[in-house]
Amino acid sequence: MRPIRLGMVGGGNDAFIGGVHRIAARIDGRFQLVAGALSSTPEKAQASGAALGLDPARTYDDFKAMAIREARLKDGIEAVAIVTPNHVHYAAAREFLKRGIHVICDKPLTSTMADARKLVKAAEESDALFVLTHNYTGYPLMRQARQMVAEGRLGKIRVVQVEYAQDWLSKADDSKQAAWRTDPERSGIGGSTGDIGTHAFNLASFVTGLTLESLSADLQAFVSGRALDDNAHVMMRFAGGARGMLWCSQVAPGNENGLRLRVFGEKAGLEWAQENPNQLWFSELGQPKQLLTRGGAGSTSDAARVTRIPGGHPEGYLEGFATIYREAAEAIEAHRDGHKVADDVIYPTVQDGLKGMQFVDACVRSSKRDGAWVTLA
Amino acid sequence: MRPIRLGMVGGGNDAFIGGVHRIAARIDGRFQLVAGALSSTPEKAQASGAALGLDPARTYDDFKAMAIREARLKDGIEAVAIVTPNHVHYAAAREFLKRGIHVICDKPLTSTMADARKLVKAAEESDALFVLTHNYTGYPLMRQARQMVAEGRLGKIRVVQVEYAQDWLSKADDSKQAAWRTDPERSGIGGSTGDIGTHAFNLASFVTGLTLESLSADLQAFVSGRALDDNAHVMMRFAGGARGMLWCSQVAPGNENGLRLRVFGEKAGLEWAQENPNQLWFSELGQPKQLLTRGGAGSTSDAARVTRIPGGHPEGYLEGFATIYREAAEAIEAHRDGHKVADDVIYPTVQDGLKGMQFVDACVRSSKRDGAWVTLA
Amino acid sequence: MRPIRLGMVGGGNDAFIGGVHRIAARIDGRFQLVAGALSSTPEKAQASGAALGLDPARTYDDFKAMAIREARLKDGIEAVAIVTPNHVHYAAAREFLKRGIHVICDKPLTSTMADARKLVKAAEESDALFVLTHNYTGYPLMRQARQMVAEGRLGKIRVVQVEYAQDWLSKADDSKQAAWRTDPERSGIGGSTGDIGTHAFNLASFVTGLTLESLSADLQAFVSGRALDDNAHVMMRFAGGARGMLWCSQVAPGNENGLRLRVFGEKAGLEWAQENPNQLWFSELGQPKQLLTRGGAGSTSDAARVTRIPGGHPEGYLEGFATIYREAAEAIEAHRDGHKVADDVIYPTVQDGLKGMQFVDACVRSSKRDGAWVTLA
Amino acid sequence: MRPIRLGMVGGGNDAFIGGVHRIAARIDGRFQLVAGALSSTPEKAQASGAALGLDPARTYDDFKAMAIREARLKDGIEAVAIVTPNHVHYAAAREFLKRGIHVICDKPLTSTMADARKLVKAAEESDALFVLTHNYTGYPLMRQARQMVAEGRLGKIRVVQVEYAQDWLSKADDSKQAAWRTDPERSGIGGSTGDIGTHAFNLASFVTGLTLESLSADLQAFVSGRALDDNAHVMMRFAGGARGMLWCSQVAPGNENGLRLRVFGEKAGLEWAQENPNQLWFSELGQPKQLLTRGGAGSTSDAARVTRIPGGHPEGYLEGFATIYREAAEAIEAHRDGHKVADDVIYPTVQDGLKGMQFVDACVRSSKRDGAWVTLA
Repeated sequence: MRPIRLGMVGGGNDAFIGGVHRIAARIDGRFQLVAGALSSTPEKAQASGAALGLDPARTYDDFKAMAIREARLKDGIEAVAIVTPNHVHYAAAREFLKRGIHVICDKPLTSTMADARKLVKAAEESDALFVLTHNYTGYPLMRQARQMVAEGRLGKIRVVQVEYAQDWLSKADDSKQAAWRTDPERSGIGGSTGDIGTHAFNLASFVTGLTLESLSADLQAFVSGRALDDNAHVMMRFAGGARGMLWCSQVAPGNENGLRLRVFGEKAGLEWAQENPNQLWFSELGQPKQLLTRGGAGSTSDAARVTRIPGGHPEGYLEGFATIYREAAEAIEAHRDGHKVADDVIYPTVQDGLKGMQFVDACVRSSKRDGAWVTLA
Repeated sequence: MRPIRLGMVGGGNDAFIGGVHRIAARIDGRFQLVAGALSSTPEKAQASGAALGLDPARTYDDFKAMAIREARLKDGIEAVAIVTPNHVHYAAAREFLKRGIHVICDKPLTSTMADARKLVKAAEESDALFVLTHNYTGYPLMRQARQMVAEGRLGKIRVVQVEYAQDWLSKADDSKQAAWRTDPERSGIGGSTGDIGTHAFNLASFVTGLTLESLSADLQAFVSGRALDDNAHVMMRFAGGARGMLWCSQVAPGNENGLRLRVFGEKAGLEWAQENPNQLWFSELGQPKQLLTRGGAGSTSDAARVTRIPGGHPEGYLEGFATIYREAAEAIEAHRDGHKVADDVIYPTVQDGLKGMQFVDACVRSSKRDGAWVTLA
Repeated sequence: MRPIRLGMVGGGNDAFIGGVHRIAARIDGRFQLVAGALSSTPEKAQASGAALGLDPARTYDDFKAMAIREARLKDGIEAVAIVTPNHVHYAAAREFLKRGIHVICDKPLTSTMADARKLVKAAEESDALFVLTHNYTGYPLMRQARQMVAEGRLGKIRVVQVEYAQDWLSKADDSKQAAWRTDPERSGIGGSTGDIGTHAFNLASFVTGLTLESLSADLQAFVSGRALDDNAHVMMRFAGGARGMLWCSQVAPGNENGLRLRVFGEKAGLEWAQENPNQLWFSELGQPKQLLTRGGAGSTSDAARVTRIPGGHPEGYLEGFATIYREAAEAIEAHRDGHKVADDVIYPTVQDGLKGMQFVDACVRSSKRDGAWVTLA
Repeated sequence: MRPIRLGMVGGGNDAFIGGVHRIAARIDGRFQLVAGALSSTPEKAQASGAALGLDPARTYDDFKAMAIREARLKDGIEAVAIVTPNHVHYAAAREFLKRGIHVICDKPLTSTMADARKLVKAAEESDALFVLTHNYTGYPLMRQARQMVAEGRLGKIRVVQVEYAQDWLSKADDSKQAAWRTDPERSGIGGSTGDIGTHAFNLASFVTGLTLESLSADLQAFVSGRALDDNAHVMMRFAGGARGMLWCSQVAPGNENGLRLRVFGEKAGLEWAQENPNQLWFSELGQPKQLLTRGGAGSTSDAARVTRIPGGHPEGYLEGFATIYREAAEAIEAHRDGHKVADDVIYPTVQDGLKGMQFVDACVRSSKRDGAWVTLA
């Protein structure tokens, strides 16, 4: 099986998430990076491409030019990873989608609702696939949690507690990473809600299968002069009666990347924390708590499918991310062969991206209306 | 130093919290139980008194009779512990307060706001002391956390996350313990909010020193037929700009007595969980996380004052509870001697109890108004 | 039921373990301290007695005088707690045992093997009881672990890993607590082996029910000038084929009171750590790990018998210690009434104390012979 | 920079460790797998090669034929990964080393001491590099621990506690993975000591920099009929006076891959556990314990050098393994360019492999002599 030819937009030398995507694409050997518009600055684009060993002829400083030329090449890219700041997602994705090149795009989907809706349309009109890298859904134990909920092992879900806490924006920070995330022009209207709240919301939805009907939010920008929220408190009401809370923060000292999910049903509860992703607590009412491990006793089929190494040998963030790429590869190869992709292949779609945008939009609308309950739309 | 003569109202043979109060009163040897109205059922009152070795002549089945007679005895009780269901607190406390007998009362303060205000008045008009057993404030590391916040080690507080999760009411339950806690007549208008939410609110207030200005609440009764909330989601706004979330639940499988507090300031954060109360995480921005231990390096004076044994020798729930009794003893002995009690003696007061009632009242009001922000009053 | 009249030898104002014994005796209300020879220094003995509210007429500065006089009093003590340094245990215990006063004695049993054998003889010749406070056997979950092993839930035991690590003697220290523990005259031939190794050995024996047949030890005194071991490595062979390792250390920075026990059988394993004693890991081969909690699902009858409060309300060191006192009370009351004590009452005996002394003796003998395997004798 | 051309010996379709090596080689994009003798069974060799997309002309069923042919190819492999059972390591490595092809070899070094010595000689006589995949030394926090010890932050080391516990061989097991590991012909004289004890010993040596002078061992084969040890207890004496204990077991229910290291010095202690490798406890005497995180505050330069993603984004087993490959790449590229490799590049060498073999040999010799202290030779 030859690797899928991959291009990349964004992800030049000093970017964080671009490097993550490249490792994720390599881990299972299903992709080969062959082209890139790694920066819109020509010198930087060339230098970044050279550092990655790309053919200079396939090193671009303009994503549209890349889309046009690669689409014409006999061995042009089959898929592109878009890892730019949010405001570029739509414009870049459109160019590739309309030329039949599959898109693997970082989250959140876009920087504006208008762009989000246009991107949905572009994806729907294209024969190419659109994969959103809500990478935390790639952790085997999150697949397992989802399956356990779906199989009814928790009973009807009552309460969802999800949080994503960091501390790296506790002070005013003008690093490159911080700058665009706190700039409405490039990030959109959500600060912590967009950058990490969308992950939390997506993961809770993924595991529980619940549809969020309405929310009440209280957003804050604690750091003086910051234009976007850096902390958010959200109450949630799901279809069917479940309720939840979501907290996201980038000003919580002592938290590096504290994504934590707890789900409680009539019969049992689940607890998981991203920083030690190889453990999942499962508590049935009236029974001792069980510590399930990735690859250990009690593993479910959905977890086993995306597990690479035995229990006790920790998989981490990069493997979870790589699972999104692996699932994308499954789908792209099925597409290439004209087959239907297998039912157990799971990846976040443009619709998930739209829901994330609606979540951010609802948080901001609710908070402006002093926490009034608003529906997602 | 002779022990303080103590009576008890409630706490008959099959009660939980009465036994806890008795152990707490014994641990430091500062009280001696000499009288009781342990039940309003005469046979049970006698049997319970006998089991505790009480003088039959001082075993009552009526708290008013007990108050009247003990107040006249030369060696009558100096203090009384009230450990009945909530709806009896006011009536019982009044009888002792007006006769100059100090009251140590379980929480929440009363079952109704009206009773709460009357009890405040009764306490203010009495020369006797009123001590509310918000026992979690007795843990040495909660004293330490409070001191660290007060000393500015966290900087200005931004975010408070507090939760109290249990699972014992996940199903309909007609045990004695469950029955009164889910009965508005005996508990008041708050279910989980009253029984455990008040603890969470009190502890957050105790540690941060912040005043809650308003809250937005979403209360649920998940168990079919239940008259009171068994799960509550609350967003909080404190004077000075800090924000918080409070979750209390009695339907969260896998949680035994999960009271957890996290406080984040401009400079540092704290995390603590009641089930392993001898550890406190302290995280300064840009510094490694520290695991502070009760009695270990970094102990503060307020913690050391209420610590009985060295680090690594765990103190538990009963010692924390006993600290409230010890502080009460300090105050009662000072009162006996006509001295002012030392500044570092801390115990929850009738005003703290009123605030807890206001918290429950506000939760219920807000929830009925679909989560509108309401002030405490 | 009237409390048992208790005296105390040792435990004056600045002692640690004396205060622990007093709280332990109070927690369940089964004892009343009425006499003491709290110090051999007359002034200190009086001051310490006064601080505890003892009758000056029953405050002694000589344990023999106390034994003689109390034995004659109509309301003399029925039991005595001996909490002196080790080298006084035998001489003190003898005086009470021979006058029919029950002895509750701190560990290790004595400072020399010769004294240990004499004390065994004195206890055997006396009608009075002898209780050794290997307090860690009082933790409910250690009772539970013992029962689970006895019921065969682990299968045949293969491996025992036990350790007791502290750091408080990492440097030369001439505090009172440190001074006698590092002095062969007062402690005996074992340093860390005697002070904490005996606890580790006792607990491993208690839980597994295994008999230690031989050991190979490597003892060190890392702190310059120290006369007794402050770190010990021991390999163990038990009757029936199980093997084990024991590590005790008082020079391991980061360890406060790190007593940890792990037991592995053919079918399952157990893990427990003293610093969070309300949790016990139980791992059956091929099954998810279970986190058993004190008072939680899966509690056994032996644990429930000595549990005071519900799961999630942590019991600690003092409650575990108090359980030894409670068991002693059960035995003393049965003795008082001429009944046989109930089968489920468990407390460490003089024979357990002798085994601890033999353990220390064997460690020292083996280490002197360069780790040769030696039998306990 | 073009990737290094890599071949592989062993690692056919149903092997575990071969797949790990391939992912590790891919993660940083420094190698490209282009040839393999993946099995000695021709059909399986072809099928395995095809599954990996290898050129059929470079898919061999004989490692010697592969070495001969690849050495002659213009674009032949520059390095080979040897991932066979132990008894093949020497014969395979020799063929590549003598043709100047770099060897990356799984541990333990060989199955016999005789082979180990011959392999050392072969490596010394070759210009090619020999890298042994003691992968746990690739974890960033193990690099950090090593640096902290080397910088004197623990003071003089006194005590080393290391263990490696698993449970997968608790019962007789004839799976392929189990079969060769319990067969002296293929594994050598060490069972758990060879398979995992060597890792524990290597890691302890790596972090502390201490030289093991002698050991006393007690080895067991608990599973009936097993020819090699499945549990081992070892006491250690290091040059300079430090002492240690090592436990390795494959019959400890509840342990998946429990490699744990604790090091205690005069000034501070360290604790680390492989299953959550992104955390390292650092405890200075008299200071609060610190929880250091990979990529977090307090990271050292040696850790930062091999860290790929920010703190809180867990790296796992595969990334640690990949670091060995990355270091090998650094060394191979320096060799290719005729440069000296940078000082901070660290990988386990053939000498480390020899020491591991000596460790196993000493364990077996000591155990046969009833735990006599033996030196490594």
